[in-house]
Amino acid sequence: MRRALDLAEHGRYSTSPNPMVGCVIVRDGVIIGEGFHERAGEAHAEVNALRAAGDARGATMYVTLEPCSRHGRTPPCTEAIRAAGIARVVAAMRDPNQQPTNFEVGLCEAEARKLNEAFLWSVTQQRPFVILKAAMTLDGKLATVTRESQWITSEVARERSLDLREQADAIMVGAGTVLADNPRLTRRLGKSRSIHSWTRVVVDASGKLSPHAQLFTDGGRTILFTTSAPEGLPSNVEVIAMNALDGRLDLEPILRELHAREIRSLLVEGGSLLHSDFIRRGLWQKMVVFVAPIVVGGAEAPSIFAGEVMRLTDAHRFRFDRAEFVGSDLMIVAYSN
Amino acid sequence: MRRALDLAEHGRYSTSPNPMVGCVIVRDGVIIGEGFHERAGEAHAEVNALRAAGDARGATMYVTLEPCSRHGRTPPCTEAIRAAGIARVVAAMRDPNQQPTNFEVGLCEAEARKLNEAFLWSVTQQRPFVILKAAMTLDGKLATVTRESQWITSEVARERSLDLREQADAIMVGAGTVLADNPRLTRRLGKSRSIHSWTRVVVDASGKLSPHAQLFTDGGRTILFTTSAPEGLPSNVEVIAMNALDGRLDLEPILRELHAREIRSLLVEGGSLLHSDFIRRGLWQKMVVFVAPIVVGGAEAPSIFAGEVMRLTDAHRFRFDRAEFVGSDLMIVAYSN
Repeated sequence: MRRALDLAEHGRYSTSPNPMVGCVIVRDGVIIGEGFHERAGEAHAEVNALRAAGDARGATMYVTLEPCSRHGRTPPCTEAIRAAGIARVVAAMRDPNQQPTNFEVGLCEAEARKLNEAFLWSVTQQRPFVILKAAMTLDGKLATVTRESQWITSEVARERSLDLREQADAIMVGAGTVLADNPRLTRRLGKSRSIHSWTRVVVDASGKLSPHAQLFTDGGRTILFTTSAPEGLPSNVEVIAMNALDGRLDLEPILRELHAREIRSLLVEGGSLLHSDFIRRGLWQKMVVFVAPIVVGGAEAPSIFAGEVMRLTDAHRFRFDRAEFVGSDLMIVAYSN
Repeated sequence: MRRALDLAEHGRYSTSPNPMVGCVIVRDGVIIGEGFHERAGEAHAEVNALRAAGDARGATMYVTLEPCSRHGRTPPCTEAIRAAGIARVVAAMRDPNQQPTNFEVGLCEAEARKLNEAFLWSVTQQRPFVILKAAMTLDGKLATVTRESQWITSEVARERSLDLREQADAIMVGAGTVLADNPRLTRRLGKSRSIHSWTRVVVDASGKLSPHAQLFTDGGRTILFTTSAPEGLPSNVEVIAMNALDGRLDLEPILRELHAREIRSLLVEGGSLLHSDFIRRGLWQKMVVFVAPIVVGGAEAPSIFAGEVMRLTDAHRFRFDRAEFVGSDLMIVAYSN
């Protein structure tokens, strides 16, 4: 099963909106076939492994997700497994998308769940898996008091950060970030081979955006949630009008709209106010923070959390998952639960 | 030599102002004697190892610090080594306190230097090795905007933090911390067996301290650097008068005074302004930060760095050394160089 999990990883940059799945077929303690799912619409891991095995009669199949029993973009795997004469199927976890099969389930389940955390969240909660991403100083600042933020972290950390974009279905920024940095928010590492077009999402309660921002004019797909769209926006920008409440847009309907567009994972790149909206509302699932070994201070410098709680009992709490050095910086991964 | 380094560790809570030293005596590939230095005034590691070995003629001695050739609190080890008939001495590093011997030096030197980083800094720079210690939120806050700080980190992190006190010769706080928290700053884990009395140091540019603060009345040793000492201080409090500059005391003469009192390592426990003075002046050597998985926000909440730099090129930069989870919190260790 560990080998099957490793195989599944090969689909990290391409399977969405499908889950990553790996499969190993074993007979008499020897691997006779391996496969993984590469892209939505293409063959599932089980079918690839059966093809590789050739004659799989009497063999055992280890697969990281319960085989599908329904017709989707491809025929059901359970039929192919039966036709191939597989004697035993062991799955790491159930598929929340379908009625349970009677295969054995539960081997390396925790690892399998983590592998597809975004997919699982999305199909069970009917909203995107939200990843907050930030680069900050040890004193929690996203920029100096003069709004200088390029670059707080090292080049190797920025490349690691760009890798997160290749894995996400969409990336979101607030209007402040568009106004201050005019970012392109492109996938530029060339790793993603998803069937999805790369989607940028802008959340704007200001109504002050320019139609000439790179996000709107570069021809890529952009969705703009706004109180007031700028005149002269290119027609490829999808505008969704909203009303502001206390000067901010409500994130709940925004996440619903994105889910309706088959966006399973959403990478939120700030700024400070947008991160804070997600934190305050408890609408995020994962946080990836690159911390640079510097301090810049400044009470008014943008911080990873722009809110203010009076009492420690009211602090927004989460759970550190791991910490890892990336070049000279520290990457901290946390979960909201 | 690795075994000798492990042995040296046994002196972590007791050797100051002496360095930690471990020693292993080997003949024909077999360890025939081991020793370490336990407390200043007691036998050195080499002598303890020779005693354990009994007959050490023709053997090789591995020692983490070059043996002393001078009379100090104890006779020179070089004489004892010669008298015992040791054939070869291998030291991890030179002793910066004395003229070089002609022993072999340099095996596991990096580890040996790190083991005694405080001692080495102190004897070569003639000032204490300064360790900044803080417990903070992920957004860099030492307390909420209402100054609530008990407790940001978990119990296991606080105990780890108390362990740092057992290793340091003195602990320092600013007047703001005394006024806000009235701390005791005691060693309470019972690990330290140093010959030094436990010293608390207060840096006060306000002149507003109360003579009834626990640090002054509990009978322990306290040194107060102040612009104006409170009336009625107990006589065991050592008062050193200073003038403030821009509302703060100059840390350079303070460190010189502490060095003169044989304080080799100084643990600075904040608050925000005192940490910031050390950071701004570049007068610290090591930083140990316990980061809790919470955010509290608040522009006016005390931060680990109270200063303000405009440009990233002017940011105070340091070097992360390691990160480790301590309970639910993350302990980050950094060095100033």
